[in-house]
Amino acid sequence: MEPPTATFTFHPIGTVHSPYTATREIPKGLGAEHRTEGKIEIFPEYEEGLQDIEGFSHLYVLWVFDRAGALPQTWVGTPPADDRPHGVFATRSPRRPNPIGLTVVELLGREGTRLRVRGLDMLDGTPVLDLKPYLSSVAPEALRRGWMAEAEKRRSDAAGG
Amino acid sequence: MEPPTATFTFHPIGTVHSPYTATREIPKGLGAEHRTEGKIEIFPEYEEGLQDIEGFSHLYVLWVFDRAGALPQTWVGTPPADDRPHGVFATRSPRRPNPIGLTVVELLGREGTRLRVRGLDMLDGTPVLDLKPYLSSVAPEALRRGWMAEAEKRRSDAAGG
Repeated sequence: MEPPTATFTFHPIGTVHSPYTATREIPKGLGAEHRTEGKIEIFPEYEEGLQDIEGFSHLYVLWVFDRAGALPQTWVGTPPADDRPHGVFATRSPRRPNPIGLTVVELLGREGTRLRVRGLDMLDGTPVLDLKPYLSSVAPEALRRGWMAEAEKRRSDAAGG
Repeated sequence: MEPPTATFTFHPIGTVHSPYTATREIPKGLGAEHRTEGKIEIFPEYEEGLQDIEGFSHLYVLWVFDRAGALPQTWVGTPPADDRPHGVFATRSPRRPNPIGLTVVELLGREGTRLRVRGLDMLDGTPVLDLKPYLSSVAPEALRRGWMAEAEKRRSDAAGG
């Protein structure tokens, strides 16, 4: 297999305006609910790319963990949702080989280059790389959630549930 | 608002092995079904990041449209699913400011650094930037699909449906 020598350079298309100014303020782990409202502001040169976006109820936001700190020496870590380590590709850890975040937000409205959204889990000022329409869902009965489901069960059992 | 001067450089963590060698072979547009099976091969230096990934039924794959050609002069285009133009952020067009693709695949199995998956819509050799667990879905009754739903209805009406 060819060595991974290629690189790809991307630039922000906009910025997140969120109430979170420090990572510790962002709900994490099992049962964390992301109902936080804020705005995604797209830079004016990309405004025409928003045409007809109002018709979608939910959007994917691709963004950069721009304040995640230095990368670790290992690709295994213990996430807030568990007391056991897992590979980064089985978690949403910011400390991943390419620090790209992915969030599904609900689109509440648009004023020009500003999208009002619900469901933010990023810091204020986070660079946005892309927006895409959220089109379909995996049927709940077809979804398995691996260690997340196990960690939830352990917590529930420990609580005497 | 600050100008978008920052750039972010990413590198592949792996490669897609798919049966598609030309874009025209990939099903597109309304009703396109992606049941295509293939493999995602992760480079050996990231193998530990796959720990526990087998427990998840579905994964997000972030990848690069590395053969999308030159970027257009406009951020509005007519997608295969419609005869009307829409902003790129309201479509899955490869011709977007940052040519990052996002696909949900079903994880069928893992052999070391190779993940067998179903639902590929990328060309063979596509660079992969990240994998994340697919954790939750938007309830179908809460989902609006904008111009996609309208384009489907127009097609259905035109067919005398």
